[in-house]
Amino acid sequence: MVGGGQGAFIGGVHRIASRIDDRFELVAGALSSTPEKAKASGEALGLDPERSYTDYEEMAKAEASRPDGIEAVSIVTPNHMHAGPAIAFLEAGIHVICDKPLTTSMEEAERIAKAVDASSAKFILTHNYTGYPLMRQARQMIERGDLGKIRVIQAEYAQDWMAEEPDADNKQAAWRTDPKKSGGGGAIGDIGTHALNLATFVSGLKPEALLADLDAFVTGRQLDDNAHVLLRMSGGAKAMLWASQVAMGCENGLTLRIYGDKAGIEWAQENPNRMTFTKFGEPKQIITRGGAGLGGGAGDWTRIPPGHPEGYLEGFANVYTDAADLIQGKADGALLPGIEAGLEGMWFIEACIESSKAGGTWVKR
Amino acid sequence: MVGGGQGAFIGGVHRIASRIDDRFELVAGALSSTPEKAKASGEALGLDPERSYTDYEEMAKAEASRPDGIEAVSIVTPNHMHAGPAIAFLEAGIHVICDKPLTTSMEEAERIAKAVDASSAKFILTHNYTGYPLMRQARQMIERGDLGKIRVIQAEYAQDWMAEEPDADNKQAAWRTDPKKSGGGGAIGDIGTHALNLATFVSGLKPEALLADLDAFVTGRQLDDNAHVLLRMSGGAKAMLWASQVAMGCENGLTLRIYGDKAGIEWAQENPNRMTFTKFGEPKQIITRGGAGLGGGAGDWTRIPPGHPEGYLEGFANVYTDAADLIQGKADGALLPGIEAGLEGMWFIEACIESSKAGGTWVKR
Amino acid sequence: MVGGGQGAFIGGVHRIASRIDDRFELVAGALSSTPEKAKASGEALGLDPERSYTDYEEMAKAEASRPDGIEAVSIVTPNHMHAGPAIAFLEAGIHVICDKPLTTSMEEAERIAKAVDASSAKFILTHNYTGYPLMRQARQMIERGDLGKIRVIQAEYAQDWMAEEPDADNKQAAWRTDPKKSGGGGAIGDIGTHALNLATFVSGLKPEALLADLDAFVTGRQLDDNAHVLLRMSGGAKAMLWASQVAMGCENGLTLRIYGDKAGIEWAQENPNRMTFTKFGEPKQIITRGGAGLGGGAGDWTRIPPGHPEGYLEGFANVYTDAADLIQGKADGALLPGIEAGLEGMWFIEACIESSKAGGTWVKR
Amino acid sequence: MVGGGQGAFIGGVHRIASRIDDRFELVAGALSSTPEKAKASGEALGLDPERSYTDYEEMAKAEASRPDGIEAVSIVTPNHMHAGPAIAFLEAGIHVICDKPLTTSMEEAERIAKAVDASSAKFILTHNYTGYPLMRQARQMIERGDLGKIRVIQAEYAQDWMAEEPDADNKQAAWRTDPKKSGGGGAIGDIGTHALNLATFVSGLKPEALLADLDAFVTGRQLDDNAHVLLRMSGGAKAMLWASQVAMGCENGLTLRIYGDKAGIEWAQENPNRMTFTKFGEPKQIITRGGAGLGGGAGDWTRIPPGHPEGYLEGFANVYTDAADLIQGKADGALLPGIEAGLEGMWFIEACIESSKAGGTWVKR
Repeated sequence: MVGGGQGAFIGGVHRIASRIDDRFELVAGALSSTPEKAKASGEALGLDPERSYTDYEEMAKAEASRPDGIEAVSIVTPNHMHAGPAIAFLEAGIHVICDKPLTTSMEEAERIAKAVDASSAKFILTHNYTGYPLMRQARQMIERGDLGKIRVIQAEYAQDWMAEEPDADNKQAAWRTDPKKSGGGGAIGDIGTHALNLATFVSGLKPEALLADLDAFVTGRQLDDNAHVLLRMSGGAKAMLWASQVAMGCENGLTLRIYGDKAGIEWAQENPNRMTFTKFGEPKQIITRGGAGLGGGAGDWTRIPPGHPEGYLEGFANVYTDAADLIQGKADGALLPGIEAGLEGMWFIEACIESSKAGGTWVKR
Repeated sequence: MVGGGQGAFIGGVHRIASRIDDRFELVAGALSSTPEKAKASGEALGLDPERSYTDYEEMAKAEASRPDGIEAVSIVTPNHMHAGPAIAFLEAGIHVICDKPLTTSMEEAERIAKAVDASSAKFILTHNYTGYPLMRQARQMIERGDLGKIRVIQAEYAQDWMAEEPDADNKQAAWRTDPKKSGGGGAIGDIGTHALNLATFVSGLKPEALLADLDAFVTGRQLDDNAHVLLRMSGGAKAMLWASQVAMGCENGLTLRIYGDKAGIEWAQENPNRMTFTKFGEPKQIITRGGAGLGGGAGDWTRIPPGHPEGYLEGFANVYTDAADLIQGKADGALLPGIEAGLEGMWFIEACIESSKAGGTWVKR
Repeated sequence: MVGGGQGAFIGGVHRIASRIDDRFELVAGALSSTPEKAKASGEALGLDPERSYTDYEEMAKAEASRPDGIEAVSIVTPNHMHAGPAIAFLEAGIHVICDKPLTTSMEEAERIAKAVDASSAKFILTHNYTGYPLMRQARQMIERGDLGKIRVIQAEYAQDWMAEEPDADNKQAAWRTDPKKSGGGGAIGDIGTHALNLATFVSGLKPEALLADLDAFVTGRQLDDNAHVLLRMSGGAKAMLWASQVAMGCENGLTLRIYGDKAGIEWAQENPNRMTFTKFGEPKQIITRGGAGLGGGAGDWTRIPPGHPEGYLEGFANVYTDAADLIQGKADGALLPGIEAGLEGMWFIEACIESSKAGGTWVKR
Repeated sequence: MVGGGQGAFIGGVHRIASRIDDRFELVAGALSSTPEKAKASGEALGLDPERSYTDYEEMAKAEASRPDGIEAVSIVTPNHMHAGPAIAFLEAGIHVICDKPLTTSMEEAERIAKAVDASSAKFILTHNYTGYPLMRQARQMIERGDLGKIRVIQAEYAQDWMAEEPDADNKQAAWRTDPKKSGGGGAIGDIGTHALNLATFVSGLKPEALLADLDAFVTGRQLDDNAHVLLRMSGGAKAMLWASQVAMGCENGLTLRIYGDKAGIEWAQENPNRMTFTKFGEPKQIITRGGAGLGGGAGDWTRIPPGHPEGYLEGFANVYTDAADLIQGKADGALLPGIEAGLEGMWFIEACIESSKAGGTWVKR
């Protein structure tokens, strides 16, 4: 693991997610860019001191040369610290599981992409919401035509935790609102890319053009905290995407609604074990995770019977377990977001900024 | 009543709404443009044959000259038949309660506006969703500052009843998809204007510019059946508005969410007796119609205790009852949508069409 | 109308309900047992002073002898004032629409039943929740076997408005907690009878025995404010019934869940336009009032399209409109609760009291 | 681990739950009573063959005498196989984490209790629903008086997976419906004990008497599949408990509602990250797991921010992590269900059976 030392949030999530299905063991890390913190964090997590590094380049080299060296690394640093380690480990032939968004600029994104192309190692981007069983089932349903031709997509990711100026000691807010660490995108980067990724993952459609109206409502904020985005998708579908960090009353309101010419689906991340499905002229059905009448579906990616809720960590674990299968050659990783998803996310961020700066104009991909 | 004969939908709604609080009596009508149908409909509704007219102009004149002539007329015809009767009755000094949208073009809209200016009679446009008690309470709450400065508005009106080519004998679908009867707006006119009106009614903000991406997804349809609209509102707030008649699984999905810098609210028409209200840093509250902890509010416009649901007809009845109060000089009708709301709606329709035709550009008001 | 003068609650509800479908006109009344109040109330409602009576017996006689005398009377007094007017009007040959529960004791109930038997007039008891379209549809579905053989019924009616000692001037609470006016039942009479009636109406089953554990939690309260009841129904089904006036957070929580050997349904009065229906091994369906896939059903008792909510008043209006059809010989009133429902309710009240007093023992019907 | 071999359900759950917070490592097991299956299961889970036992007594002895012997054992066998291993490991001084219900009879339960008393080792019973953060918060709230004096408890655990005769190869259904393996309780044992335990855990009250009406609705079933239970709790509170395996449309419908003289709460396991809380005369609040306005509360037992759902496995993990803390002397295990909860559950099962057999009479504790 690179990053994820004391005070971090997403590192702990990655560690639990990797552990749930017992497919990974944490044996080495460069857990912080501050040497003392790196050491202390490594100790707290029970790492062999020899494998608790203070520098990711050193770690990549050392691990690549050990007979018991790591097979894969999780990169869980802020955005501006993704490219360096990703490239270093890819060059060392070590598989990379990287947090999203890919990085802070398209230029860097393309450098990573080149490293992916050149490496024998795999690259996985943890757009973790694709791991929710019902989102995978929704993708299956659309693939096999249950919804018909897709017409309309409504994607939202609304939060309120940055609706006011955060406290000075809020580390999570601090780097997310700092263009040097987060890149040019605020809400669009941190959560907008998740909404876009989930919409494309499930619908199978790609964005062809977008138009964005970005705001930074909180005084003094340098990056957007609210984004209204229209998208024109492949195949003629139209999408609306709303990402907000100032929507009072929304905790983690990621929702996806997709309407085709045969049926529609609706899903909300905060209660992820249910999805509605309505065929034209029939009553709305509540599809539960692994529940009755699915014909396979979500049950393939679930650990416990329907009615026992799974959550965010289990969805994240599905991404890790699929990564393990891919790395071990047990599966082809067809459901795993990779470098393409990362490049699409970077295009999204940069196109939103370009569109909004121009007063809200269409930007083609 | 003008319109509302056999086979009509909204006429019956107006009749019930006017009756609920016992403030109106139906005594005259030109219920259809087809004479036989007008007569038969009048008979079925128990009208005095002498006051069951076949022509609205004749009705306006005759009623204006009777000592027991009607005080007010309800116009419940398709859009292209609003202007004629509205102007005729206004000129005859008879109060007009007119269905929405105002008419089929801005030009006609302005002719009605002139007639309103010139008349001693009142003009009320039945944007009936403003009659829901909780929407009136939300307006109060925003007016008194409970939400702080408004930042973001998310308004939706999604249906699915026109998701396929309707049956040839579906009279309701037929006129709504015919530009000659409906005007240039499809979904934007029939339901988009409701969403906009409700958003402005509750927020107190006005649209300053919009950008629209309209589609007619159903083959052969001449008018839009899906509209994605971005709006810039007075005071710097941003709005998203989605109107759709092809969203499979949505019956009458009018929802309004408004977020300020102090709090946010969320409401959905299909379960109109509850609204959520969240102050920053506090748990979400469920505000019920007339329920605990309101301090006045919705209880002023409700007939039965909380927990006993009121619905669409009661909200509509509130508009009628307020109209009666206005007409009888008992109240100032401050909550009643009138000609201004009508003109705003017509601007919305025409601006959406203009924007979309130009490929999705901003149109200022 | 008898009762329903100033300060009353349910009288106003009956008046609106009778008006919604324009089948009744209020022309006479004995609106209060206090003469001045009766007169003032009659005036406020626009009654002809001659037909605004101060005594129900006088009213029954006078109206029966007028050529334009009333066809039907609504009795909307507190429970202890049902029997007198009901019998008087039945004897006068005037149809009676009576609020529930039937009366305050089984003895009186049987006197009313005798009067019903002896009269040419009809007797309707306003168990208004049977008027909800989806409850009627549920009854249809069970009748035609959609749920199979019924096994389990869970019925609840939970409120919180009497969770503390009410204010001295709360007229509604005052008579409901006074054994002289309400009879021996508190929550079981006021709301428990509704829950039982709805359960039997929908399921088609009858109670064969019950066991009750009653409490009066509020200090000094003479009648029960919480009732836990087990029932054994005809056909071997088992039921649980909970009625409470002290359940903090419940406004008017009437819910009904019925499970058969083929399928189950769930419905809640506070959002009455939806019901779930689950066949074994299939996804749960959301059945909406008048919505897709019904095959008739609730659409027969509804005024507006699905997605436009109807509420308590429209359900109540269905009872009145059916009563009008029955009185005019247009229908057989098969869905209308009558004297049988009233006697069953009285048995329920008295059996609950008997059971609870005996420490919670089974009482057979 | 004892039990949990191939084809088992709850064993896998225990393994994940123990792993989530990285406090346990699985190093030994007697995973099946069938030797070949025990071996194969051990191999599949990566156990050292030497520590993959075919007999729990052998395992208890061997592990107790190893310097690196296990500190704790999880017993995840069917009910009739709890007592043997529990006593064996307790006698060997090894901590026991045992699945519920405690065992199949009160007599055996008391033998386990004696072993607990006599042992230096701890005994934890995995009533896992007590691990849900909001249930722990609810307990805190009641303890500190937020609800006032408790009046009414409504507890339910409704499922439908045994609503028909299960397939012959349904191993989970098979032992649960076999009195030899399950004991005398069907639904009351498998899920009713969970509902009772959660109600007592949260409310702090104890059952003083109960009355049960049990049914076996599915033809040929030997154990109850539906239970209607009334309870009289300490302090004068009254409770209703419904446990069912034949409630069509219910997947894992464990719900708890508690009403005091100051406030009420409502929670449903299927969406466990929210709970409502209503103070008398105030709007209902939605309390989210770790969300705003808690003052500590659920946030103490959660891994990720509010809005990111946690589920069944994380709740289960809280029990395991608390067990680790207790075993390592880091905490006093005050929230952990132990032998007392097990004895209470056995009393519940036996009292329900006794009551129902007697026709539905009160049984005191």
